[in-house]
Amino acid sequence: MANSIYRASILQSYSQLLFQPCLSNKHCVPKKTNLLCFASSQLNPARSEVSFCIGTHLIPHPNKVERGGEDAFFVSNFKGGVIAVADGVSGWAEQNVDPSLFSKELMANASSLVGNLEVNYDPQILIRKAHAATCSKGSATAIVAMLERNGTMKVASVGDCGLRVIRKGQIIFSTTPQEHYFDCPYQLSSELVGQTYLDAVVSSVELVEGDTIVMGSDGLFDNVFDGEIVSTLAAHSDVVEAVAKLHDQYVMVAKALAKLASNHSLDSRFDSPYTIEARSKGLDVPFWKKILGMKLTGGKLDDITVIVGQVVSSAASPQPT
Amino acid sequence: MANSIYRASILQSYSQLLFQPCLSNKHCVPKKTNLLCFASSQLNPARSEVSFCIGTHLIPHPNKVERGGEDAFFVSNFKGGVIAVADGVSGWAEQNVDPSLFSKELMANASSLVGNLEVNYDPQILIRKAHAATCSKGSATAIVAMLERNGTMKVASVGDCGLRVIRKGQIIFSTTPQEHYFDCPYQLSSELVGQTYLDAVVSSVELVEGDTIVMGSDGLFDNVFDGEIVSTLAAHSDVVEAVAKLHDQYVMVAKALAKLASNHSLDSRFDSPYTIEARSKGLDVPFWKKILGMKLTGGKLDDITVIVGQVVSSAASPQPT
Repeated sequence: MANSIYRASILQSYSQLLFQPCLSNKHCVPKKTNLLCFASSQLNPARSEVSFCIGTHLIPHPNKVERGGEDAFFVSNFKGGVIAVADGVSGWAEQNVDPSLFSKELMANASSLVGNLEVNYDPQILIRKAHAATCSKGSATAIVAMLERNGTMKVASVGDCGLRVIRKGQIIFSTTPQEHYFDCPYQLSSELVGQTYLDAVVSSVELVEGDTIVMGSDGLFDNVFDGEIVSTLAAHSDVVEAVAKLHDQYVMVAKALAKLASNHSLDSRFDSPYTIEARSKGLDVPFWKKILGMKLTGGKLDDITVIVGQVVSSAASPQPT
Repeated sequence: MANSIYRASILQSYSQLLFQPCLSNKHCVPKKTNLLCFASSQLNPARSEVSFCIGTHLIPHPNKVERGGEDAFFVSNFKGGVIAVADGVSGWAEQNVDPSLFSKELMANASSLVGNLEVNYDPQILIRKAHAATCSKGSATAIVAMLERNGTMKVASVGDCGLRVIRKGQIIFSTTPQEHYFDCPYQLSSELVGQTYLDAVVSSVELVEGDTIVMGSDGLFDNVFDGEIVSTLAAHSDVVEAVAKLHDQYVMVAKALAKLASNHSLDSRFDSPYTIEARSKGLDVPFWKKILGMKLTGGKLDDITVIVGQVVSSAASPQPT
């Protein structure tokens, strides 16, 4: 039983102002803040072509700022656009292995393989080949999304990086994390015991102009609820007219989400997605504290990578300048 | 930062006992309990072929038992298998329109159109054509999933029916509900103001042998948490060897989930997904009750439709008897 009859169309305007020029059309090595619009030139009379317009932001773990943290990512303008995040497994530090080496090499390899014919624009094969080409010791979670110009976005994910698609103020598509047990995600590894591309969850979703995507490492999703992602996007959509350089919008939203995650991660009283999951797995404060009404709370200190993008009409998206 | 290095493979055995004979291979009209295995005969040397083996169960709203409720569903053995649920919008009763007519006609039309060449085994086109062929007054939410023999399952959904894919004890794929506002989902309608196939969320996921799917009306997902779905499946997996007729397993699990949802729907103290969402939208008990520590709780009385299926190797799944 669905209760209410819908009686009037709800109109949500998606400003053409969002379809703005680009700063670059090159493959990008991971850096702190980045913005790309991807435009394609081919025409398909049956269906308008689309591409990503993207902003990124990375906030390293407070104790790992000097090395830039252990997350890595790349964005590419190949076809409709490719985005990817990898998160180095920190436990390797206990074995004197820098956990960032594996994730950074994995993403560098993936970036260089995006146009490879054998990859065939398939994110699962990209993970296979990038993993096979990675020589560093270590392990990482990874997610790759590839947008076709017709709007089909293919996603492959191993572990607990994540992706959300927001349409008209609602999340319409989510990935779900895979883990062996709490805080031990599925991971691509230099060791045989780890996971491979065969363990990836492979899915796809049909995107349309105006859809917003949010991809991130678990540092985002462990500290920010889905509802907060939606409201943060909405808040920035409302102020778009006040933004001097409109193409900065995606970077602004990525920064805002990363900052929100960072603030929550530092707040010992915030009841985060991370601590809610921990409690659901039986991890909590000692019994005597529970009697006093206390519970395990707080965000999760972590590297935080956020990629925010808008699906734009290639026709409406001017060529990169 | 993903914390723990994974050091050992976690083995989860998926008993061959699951690949059992079928009771029927026909298209089905909605009925209370049903079981189907779908086997295909063609061979693909590159990738083993798969199909659904399915059990269903429907519990009508307690006040609507005589008419069988307002949910409707169908299952079909076409290609790898097709499953669909529609949920009639109950608000039509206030206008003296039987809310079950639209949902039942919609599913009957969809069932008859599954093999239509113009549908091209595309769930969004199936929704378009079934909706266009439906003459009853009313409206309904609807979800359709179509399994290709290579394991690709395409899903199209309008509103708040849902689908979960469970692999190795974890949910790896979820649909997300669409609504205009609380308790008013997106809906296919006899009226122009309603939604159409163009409003459907269209996604797909690559399935493998052993994956379990759970599809249902909101009567399931408003009353049962995802964790409970997973634990219910696990509980029935454990007792499989004790089941006399192994092909009854899928019906048993569908029944168990529907019964769990029904029990929660009748429990005024249960803090259900429905009341949690209601509170998040600002709907709660009066202020003076809040001061006394009370809050809005309880399940949601509703029609409850559950379809549970296993992805089985077509080779391992004997032809229907």
